[in-house]
Amino acid sequence: MTKDIKVAIIGVGGVGKAFIGQLANFIKKNSSTVSVSAVYIARSTAALISKDFSPLPLTAFASEELDAAGTAPLSVPDLIQFLKESGSETILIDNTSSIELANTYPDFLKAGINIATPNKKGFSSEEKLWNDIFAAAGNNGGGGGYVFHEATVGAGLPVISTIKDLVDTGDEVTKVEGVFSGTMSFLFNEFAPISSNGPVRAFSDVVKIAKDAGYTEPDPRDDLNGLDVARKLTILARLCGLDIDSPTSFPVQSLIPKPLESASTSQEFMEGLPNFDSDIGLLAENAQKEGKVIRFVGSIDVLSKAVKVGLEKFDISHPIAGLKGSDNIIAFYTKRYGDRALIVQGAGAGAEVTAMGVLSDVIKIINRIK
Amino acid sequence: MTKDIKVAIIGVGGVGKAFIGQLANFIKKNSSTVSVSAVYIARSTAALISKDFSPLPLTAFASEELDAAGTAPLSVPDLIQFLKESGSETILIDNTSSIELANTYPDFLKAGINIATPNKKGFSSEEKLWNDIFAAAGNNGGGGGYVFHEATVGAGLPVISTIKDLVDTGDEVTKVEGVFSGTMSFLFNEFAPISSNGPVRAFSDVVKIAKDAGYTEPDPRDDLNGLDVARKLTILARLCGLDIDSPTSFPVQSLIPKPLESASTSQEFMEGLPNFDSDIGLLAENAQKEGKVIRFVGSIDVLSKAVKVGLEKFDISHPIAGLKGSDNIIAFYTKRYGDRALIVQGAGAGAEVTAMGVLSDVIKIINRIK
Repeated sequence: MTKDIKVAIIGVGGVGKAFIGQLANFIKKNSSTVSVSAVYIARSTAALISKDFSPLPLTAFASEELDAAGTAPLSVPDLIQFLKESGSETILIDNTSSIELANTYPDFLKAGINIATPNKKGFSSEEKLWNDIFAAAGNNGGGGGYVFHEATVGAGLPVISTIKDLVDTGDEVTKVEGVFSGTMSFLFNEFAPISSNGPVRAFSDVVKIAKDAGYTEPDPRDDLNGLDVARKLTILARLCGLDIDSPTSFPVQSLIPKPLESASTSQEFMEGLPNFDSDIGLLAENAQKEGKVIRFVGSIDVLSKAVKVGLEKFDISHPIAGLKGSDNIIAFYTKRYGDRALIVQGAGAGAEVTAMGVLSDVIKIINRIK
Repeated sequence: MTKDIKVAIIGVGGVGKAFIGQLANFIKKNSSTVSVSAVYIARSTAALISKDFSPLPLTAFASEELDAAGTAPLSVPDLIQFLKESGSETILIDNTSSIELANTYPDFLKAGINIATPNKKGFSSEEKLWNDIFAAAGNNGGGGGYVFHEATVGAGLPVISTIKDLVDTGDEVTKVEGVFSGTMSFLFNEFAPISSNGPVRAFSDVVKIAKDAGYTEPDPRDDLNGLDVARKLTILARLCGLDIDSPTSFPVQSLIPKPLESASTSQEFMEGLPNFDSDIGLLAENAQKEGKVIRFVGSIDVLSKAVKVGLEKFDISHPIAGLKGSDNIIAFYTKRYGDRALIVQGAGAGAEVTAMGVLSDVIKIINRIK
């Protein structure tokens, strides 16, 4: 007899919308074997709540409907109480990037509510939160709900699951290295392609192209500060067993020129950026003289416990140098795999592939609890 | 309360031994949260049977012990009966390459026994066996045991799990392409490296090097006939939803020269091989004139339902051309990932990484049934 599974979805931005669409298809295709329905869909200011736990419609869902039809969202304690009252197995889908919500994961898990999320905050902030989450979760034999977060690194790419398979089967991960940001990948693949003799255009021009195409955050400094990559490295390093206090507890190179850190608007930042083109241009030219290119990478040396994020030079024959578009690449070096890494590569950002990572976690949870 | 899980292991060759070692470590590390023990360990001629279901020792296990201490192996009906009598959840680990054993998977599954295996035969032979296995299995909501076979393609690389995640979350796989044989990878990376101007040595010399290093089957024709790759393509094509009658129902290029197919020994084959070096040498030279190299690849075009295995030419900048050592590379093209494939790359053969793929399946089963 298949269990009834109720899901609560918070966040209906790009990823949230894509997730709801994919979930609707999944429910339709698998209705003969699993019973899954959404009973709560919320954004920060409004919510749809199915008080009798009947399924909320998922087709053609838009946040405008939410604002029109919705009521105020439940507080976290009220949401936990609501999900417990369903009498079903439940899953919280956190499609936000909220640290406040992530801070309450341990409460959800202790209440037996499972969590699937692309929100990096819960796993890359203070170490205490990470410890609290996994002490409460059922993943390692505890009694709480399961928590999965594949899409926090590389979106839908099999990164978290791969590192867990390696570790759980007893392999020793010695080093993880790669390009973990689609934005940074695009910027440097455009700025210093392997096919050219040095930079083909100014760095600030490339940033402008990326911003105009929607490849950067509204304020590109939110990509260029390296913190997004640092958060991903924090997660992977912790999965390798390293104690990482926070994403700012290891060296992270910011590509924001010092004088522009305090620019009050992104426009002011973009206007000032060309003044610093010669600095990064020189780095690229010097690399080129050695037959190399510069790339913005993260690396974890597990043995020496060294985690770092920043620009590095790579030989043009190196897989990291040859990356294209906004692809991510993640190389796992382990005892079993020896000198030649296990490599995962592909789009590491985008609403559909991120939502796919979340839905594959939901399916993992369903398979465990049904 | 954690359930008690009993495993039966058949096959104690290279992969079997590595698996037993990894399983022993896993049991030791996770003894506080899961209770797993081996109650049956067998090779074709001898078996260790724990008739009172107490754990068999797994440390320093060798097939010599098995021959010395063991009795005759149980017949399949008797083994199924034995496992059912344990009163526990049970897992069959098939570390053989036996079609006879694979033919009985549906019986194990119907009896509620789970299966983890690197044995390609069950999933790449006649389509009826595939259908019977998945009709009996619990994977898709049926009532039988779960069956997992990650290590049948790419050993420990996340290939099967990735294609299943793509399909299960509703993505459309349009094409799968790659180098699926560590042996074929080594042969062509050595024979026609991208760094040279055409072949650097005779093909028969490279085959000899590979054979002497243990990279080929004892009779290299068992690699060169392409059937191993055809079996892997059969599995992946079926996971993409294609009906594939058998691994010989689509074009598979054999690299065994016709007159040597009937050579009565591998030595006779190796002695005759140099007579055909000019044929394959010419292919490599012609490719080189176009700035390309030849590689032995498999591809599945899902839309046109075309599956094929054989030599293809690749531009030297293509990831398949730049492969090194005996690495596999598998590129998944899907609707969501667009023009840029999701790529998995790394060692696709070897006892330890194959055993890892099997153990990660065992862990998946444990997580579902515990």
